[in-house]
Amino acid sequence: MTQNSKTTKVIRFDAAGGPEVLKLEEIPLPELAADEVRIRIAALGLNRADSMFRRNQYVLEPSFPGSRIGTDAAGVVEAVGAEVTALKVGDRVTAGLGFDVSRYGTHGETALLPAGFAIGYPDFLSPEEAASINIPYVTAWGALVDQGALAEGDFVLVTAASSGVGIAAVQIAKAVGAIPIAVTRRREKRPRLFEAGAAHVVVTEEEDLARRVLEITGGRGVRIVFDAVFGGMPETLVEVTAPGGTIFFYGALDQEKPAVLPMFPTMMKEIRFQGYVVYSVFGDPERLARALRFIYDGFESGRLKVVVDRSFPLAEYREAHRRLESNEQIGRIVVTV
Amino acid sequence: MTQNSKTTKVIRFDAAGGPEVLKLEEIPLPELAADEVRIRIAALGLNRADSMFRRNQYVLEPSFPGSRIGTDAAGVVEAVGAEVTALKVGDRVTAGLGFDVSRYGTHGETALLPAGFAIGYPDFLSPEEAASINIPYVTAWGALVDQGALAEGDFVLVTAASSGVGIAAVQIAKAVGAIPIAVTRRREKRPRLFEAGAAHVVVTEEEDLARRVLEITGGRGVRIVFDAVFGGMPETLVEVTAPGGTIFFYGALDQEKPAVLPMFPTMMKEIRFQGYVVYSVFGDPERLARALRFIYDGFESGRLKVVVDRSFPLAEYREAHRRLESNEQIGRIVVTV
Repeated sequence: MTQNSKTTKVIRFDAAGGPEVLKLEEIPLPELAADEVRIRIAALGLNRADSMFRRNQYVLEPSFPGSRIGTDAAGVVEAVGAEVTALKVGDRVTAGLGFDVSRYGTHGETALLPAGFAIGYPDFLSPEEAASINIPYVTAWGALVDQGALAEGDFVLVTAASSGVGIAAVQIAKAVGAIPIAVTRRREKRPRLFEAGAAHVVVTEEEDLARRVLEITGGRGVRIVFDAVFGGMPETLVEVTAPGGTIFFYGALDQEKPAVLPMFPTMMKEIRFQGYVVYSVFGDPERLARALRFIYDGFESGRLKVVVDRSFPLAEYREAHRRLESNEQIGRIVVTV
Repeated sequence: MTQNSKTTKVIRFDAAGGPEVLKLEEIPLPELAADEVRIRIAALGLNRADSMFRRNQYVLEPSFPGSRIGTDAAGVVEAVGAEVTALKVGDRVTAGLGFDVSRYGTHGETALLPAGFAIGYPDFLSPEEAASINIPYVTAWGALVDQGALAEGDFVLVTAASSGVGIAAVQIAKAVGAIPIAVTRRREKRPRLFEAGAAHVVVTEEEDLARRVLEITGGRGVRIVFDAVFGGMPETLVEVTAPGGTIFFYGALDQEKPAVLPMFPTMMKEIRFQGYVVYSVFGDPERLARALRFIYDGFESGRLKVVVDRSFPLAEYREAHRRLESNEQIGRIVVTV
């Protein structure tokens, strides 16, 4: 098979910026290195990380021209490099995390990946579901279950609760018997957050976050905060956290305001600000295996369930990014290929 | 015995400010409530908390006029209230933590304390040593040993290493087999910090802290930072902390600069900023018992040893505060009564 005789369509961009920089381009099907696999993508999922990467505000940097983009994706292996033994053509896989996104970004009709980043997934998951696990559910699992040891009866506060990661956190908290309090700006998101498993929903455009959380927790505060926003919020987060509690921050949605620690209350309440990234789970095979076992079991039993906000075709990939940045979505923005 | 016929000299102050607000005043020996004991003070120790309290920049507030001051102190019980059964006249005690300092402050010839805050201490300790344990050593123990589980071979960075708490931390780290790196501003403090047990000393007026610590730790960084300064330093502290490490902040010496968390490096390295106060140990009898066992054993075996910077008579109490704020001291500032 002469690969050069074929082409494939992928998303690329040549400068950091808004969704308008994204282009669906037809390129020659790239050469496959000995340790790589080529995946025919069936579905892909959007995360905040994608739009931060596109704006060059992420921990990984695009390299121009022709930066690829995208992490979460699921598909079928259609070619394997000469040295790849763990995977074969026809395997259903998702893209793990930790690869060079600028080079290997998965958003397109096909993607190359070093074989170690392709992860088989069980038959009972659809490609849309499989493309919604690696960032949202593993992120939430790593903080809440693995590092936070969230347990029955614990209160946990989830900010940006309508995001893919937020909803995953609400579901995982409920699955372990904890009491998830979902934070959202808009009233109209309330019903769907309750549906997703939130025990309480705080609508910040109408309610005082600190007062409501203290009310709900009988004045004590939550044991764990799972926070994507940070920026200007640390003072409020400390106020709503119980003594000895942990504030995980895994996102940094608000990069405008500096995250100033309120020193005295943080000391007096012995609160822990814990930086967290999902990469650490993907970098540790044992943790990743535990994460996926927990998550796949949850999907099989129905306790976990992807909430899809909207599905777009690949030709409308820019629109999918616009939806991601609208702050109107609830749950996952998916692109089917 | 008619208590009103007697007087006692105590330190009081009527307005927040510098050392000049402190006065040694002769007052009638106060009435003893049923749950209180009166202690004839033999020695007292100064801590940063005392000068912050005096300036009204501490977590506890003085109440004027006539605010008392002081926490660390050791002496002999000379009277017990009607309901006190756990202590008797003649017992050698130190003052624990958590009482209302404005009312019960221990710095003076005598002090009243609710009996629960008076802690017996072993015979092999001098009053000067006993008055140097409760804040310095228990503070360092609670973070390093109890919460941080500092172990053999761990690198630990101690800022403000010349303070009473700093030296206690260096000694405790060495006692558990860890490798203490002491941070000081001034070169002339180096020899005494090595003497106190530091494996390495970084002199920040001459050396780049981050570069030196990375050199010492082979590029990896320390597992634990024990930091009294905070303020403008978090970025450097994150730089010198190993992935997954913990930055304890127990002081807040630098209140001028806001403590802005560097979000991305903190997330990528999964670093934990852990607020900590020694009050939590004194509020938990089981933890306090473990702390004192560890510390008394250390003193008995000689692994821990109070480093006295200078000793003042009570009449020079103001001078003792000036010395505390000079940043020239190494170790403990003690007042003998």
